[in-house]
Amino acid sequence: MTGILQGMRVVEGSAFVAVPLAGMTLAQMGADVIRFDRLQGGLDAGRWPLAPSGRSLFWAGLNKGKRSIAVDMSHPEGRELITRTITAPGKDAGVFLTNLRVRGWMDYETLSCHRKDLVMVTLLGDRQGRPQVDYTVNPALGIPDITGPEDHDGPVANALPAWDLVAGHMCVSSVLAAERHRLRTGAGQEVTLTLKDVAAATLGHLGMIGDAVLNGAVRGKSGNALYGAYGQDFVCADGQRVMVIGLTARQWTGLVQVTGTEAEMDRLARRTGRDLADEGARWELRAQITAILRPWFAARPSKVVADLFDEAKLTWSQFRTVHEAVTQDPDLGPDNPIFTDLAQEQLGRFPVPGHAASFSALERDPPRAAPVLGAHTEEILSDVTGLDDTEIARLFDRGIVRGPDGAKLHSAA
Amino acid sequence: MTGILQGMRVVEGSAFVAVPLAGMTLAQMGADVIRFDRLQGGLDAGRWPLAPSGRSLFWAGLNKGKRSIAVDMSHPEGRELITRTITAPGKDAGVFLTNLRVRGWMDYETLSCHRKDLVMVTLLGDRQGRPQVDYTVNPALGIPDITGPEDHDGPVANALPAWDLVAGHMCVSSVLAAERHRLRTGAGQEVTLTLKDVAAATLGHLGMIGDAVLNGAVRGKSGNALYGAYGQDFVCADGQRVMVIGLTARQWTGLVQVTGTEAEMDRLARRTGRDLADEGARWELRAQITAILRPWFAARPSKVVADLFDEAKLTWSQFRTVHEAVTQDPDLGPDNPIFTDLAQEQLGRFPVPGHAASFSALERDPPRAAPVLGAHTEEILSDVTGLDDTEIARLFDRGIVRGPDGAKLHSAA
Repeated sequence: MTGILQGMRVVEGSAFVAVPLAGMTLAQMGADVIRFDRLQGGLDAGRWPLAPSGRSLFWAGLNKGKRSIAVDMSHPEGRELITRTITAPGKDAGVFLTNLRVRGWMDYETLSCHRKDLVMVTLLGDRQGRPQVDYTVNPALGIPDITGPEDHDGPVANALPAWDLVAGHMCVSSVLAAERHRLRTGAGQEVTLTLKDVAAATLGHLGMIGDAVLNGAVRGKSGNALYGAYGQDFVCADGQRVMVIGLTARQWTGLVQVTGTEAEMDRLARRTGRDLADEGARWELRAQITAILRPWFAARPSKVVADLFDEAKLTWSQFRTVHEAVTQDPDLGPDNPIFTDLAQEQLGRFPVPGHAASFSALERDPPRAAPVLGAHTEEILSDVTGLDDTEIARLFDRGIVRGPDGAKLHSAA
Repeated sequence: MTGILQGMRVVEGSAFVAVPLAGMTLAQMGADVIRFDRLQGGLDAGRWPLAPSGRSLFWAGLNKGKRSIAVDMSHPEGRELITRTITAPGKDAGVFLTNLRVRGWMDYETLSCHRKDLVMVTLLGDRQGRPQVDYTVNPALGIPDITGPEDHDGPVANALPAWDLVAGHMCVSSVLAAERHRLRTGAGQEVTLTLKDVAAATLGHLGMIGDAVLNGAVRGKSGNALYGAYGQDFVCADGQRVMVIGLTARQWTGLVQVTGTEAEMDRLARRTGRDLADEGARWELRAQITAILRPWFAARPSKVVADLFDEAKLTWSQFRTVHEAVTQDPDLGPDNPIFTDLAQEQLGRFPVPGHAASFSALERDPPRAAPVLGAHTEEILSDVTGLDDTEIARLFDRGIVRGPDGAKLHSAA
C-alpha cells in the first residue's frame, strides 16, 4: 500500500453513503482504514444495486481498500475490543470516523479517556439529532421543487445522493484538517457535522438563500436549461440528444458562429432591446434563443454536430444512459488510468475506479477490492489491538468476533 | 482570523463553482486564501442569482472570507506579480489552487522553478483537456436518464451542480493531503483531477458501473422513490407533501406500525410470496406498498403526520420550495450556529453560512463576506509579494493592478 496518506490509520464505524465514502476515499489515498461491523454486517450490507450473486455492488464500491473486522458489540468484551482498536497507539493512528450515534462507550468523551489526542469526526442527520438521509434533506431544502420539466407539476427528486457525496468529502477534509492540527499542536478534538447543515450551507454558498431573501424569488423549474445564462439540450437529426453551453462570452459567440445564427440573434436582440452579451439576457430570452437554434440541430446528425463543436472547441456533450456511458465511453473504463478492470470475489469483473486525483509525488495506487466481512478480524486483533494468539482464539471460540468464513459466528447473532 | 487551518496560505486562480468553493471552504477553515482576478473580474463575476443591486449573489457566496487582488495578466509585469504571490516564501504558503489551464507562465513546471516545494492542485474538465461543466458531465454519464417521473419521456437534468460540489471538496482534501505530505517530507507536488473523472469514479463507487456491466441493466426512472429499498413521497390531507423512508428494518417496521398497515402488508407479502423484511422486495413491490399507504396520508393533515412520525422517531421530511425553506426552517437562519445574519455591501442582509463542521478545539469562526474585486491588492502586494510603497504606487499608476474603487483601472482593460 502506498499513497499520499501512507501511515495514517483511520477506524470507521458507519453505514450507507457519506461516511463509507469518506473512509474509502482516505483508503484510496493510502490510509489504513479499518471498518468495524456487527457480526451480521452493517445496515448497508445488502444495499442495491446487487451483483447476480446477490452481493451488494454498492457496498463493494464504497468500502474498497478497507480492512474489515466483525465484532459482537452487544457484548461488553466486543465493545472493549472496538474501543482498543479506535484508541490504539501510533502517532498517525487515533482517528475515528463515524455516522453511528452511540451514546456512552462510543462517544468522544469516553473514547478520548483512552487516547487523549483522539481525532473523532461524526456525521449526524440534523442538529436536533434526528436521523436524516439524502432523500429527506433534499426535499426539505427545496431542490426537487426547482428540478424537472417546466410543465411538470410537482417535485422531482435527485437520482444522485448529492448531499451524501458532499458530506462524505467534507468528512475527509475534516479528518485531514483535524489531524493536521494534531500534528502541529499534539491536541485531538471532536469534529461534528450534519447532513442537513452541509446541504443548507451549500445552498447559501450558491447564492440561493440570498436570492430567496432579497428577491423574494420562488425560482421555478427550468427543465434542462443552464440556470442564469445559456445552455440547452437539443435533439439532432438522428434522434441523439446533446447539451450545448453558452455560459462564457467565448462559448456563446462560438455557439452562434458554428450554427450560423448571427443574423437571427441580432434580430432577437434588436426586437427585445437586450444585449445577448449579457448572460442574464440570454437566460431570460432562452426560449427564443432555443427556438432559433433548434432547426440547426434537427437538420444535422449528432456526429456532424460533434465534429463541428469539437473543432470550434465548444463546451458540449451527448446524453447517454448509464449503460451507454459505461459501455461506450472510454473515460469509464481501463483506457482511463483511474480505472482498473478488477475481478472481485462473488461479483465478477468490471472497471473499478481508484482515487480521481493524481498526486505527482507518488505512483497511482490501483484500486483494491472491498473486503469480505471480517476478512481482517484476526490480523487487526493482533497488529492493532495487540492481543496474543491465545486471546484471539478465545474470542473466536466464544463468538465475540468472526472471520471471513462466518464459521465462528456467535450463535446469538 | 482563527480556524483549524490558521496560518496556511492558499492562492487561487479560478472561476465558477468547484475551485471557488474549494478556496472558500479552506478560507472558512481559517486559511488565508488569496483569489487573483483580471482587472475586469473573473468569468464568474456576474453569475446568477443577482442581488437587486445587480451584484452577483453567487460570487458573494463562493468567495467568502478570501482576499482579492486584481492584476492585468496580459502584461508581463502582472504575470510576474502573480508568480511572486503564488510562490512567496512562508512555511505554510506556496499552495496554488486553480481551474484555469494556462500553459507557460502559470503551469506547475514554471511556477515550481520559483518555489521548489510548491503544492499545486489543478481541476480540469476532462482527461482529454476539453472544457467540461457540471451541465455537460452529468448527461454524458447518464444521471438525467434515471432522473424524473416514471412517465416522463426524456432526460431530466440536476438543478444542483452536484459534480462541481463534489469536485470542489475533493480539491480541498487534495490540498490538505499534499500539504500534509510536504509537512512530513518537504516535497511539493502537482495534483491533477478532472470534473469528469470525479463523476465517473463516483458512479463506480456507488455500484452503478458494476450494475451496468454485470446486470446489463438499463436502470429506469423511479420518480421520487428511494432506490433499492422503500421511500416515497405522499400528499397529506392539507395538500402538503412529505417524504417517508423505509430503508432500514427499524424505519420500515415503524412506518408500517404508525400507519397501522400491518395486515395489508402481510396480505401483500403472502399474495406475492415475498418477504418485505428484504429491502429488495420492498423496492420491487414499491407501487403496491405505496397504494396501501397512500389513503392513510390522504386522510391526515401534515401536522398530524409530522407529530406521529416524530414521536415514533421515523425518518421523514416535508417538501418545500427554496423560499419556504429559507423563510420557515430555523435550520437555515441564525437560530442555527452555522449561520450569521450578515449585512453585505451592495447586497443586503441575509443569513450567511460558515463552515458546516464544528471543530471542538476552536471557537466557531463567523462567516466573513466576500471581498470587492481588488479590495486587498495593495496589502497583498506589500505583505505577500514584498513590494515597497513606491513600487506599489507605480503599479497602480500604470494600471497594472487595481484597487477596490476601480479608479486606477488600466485604460486597456
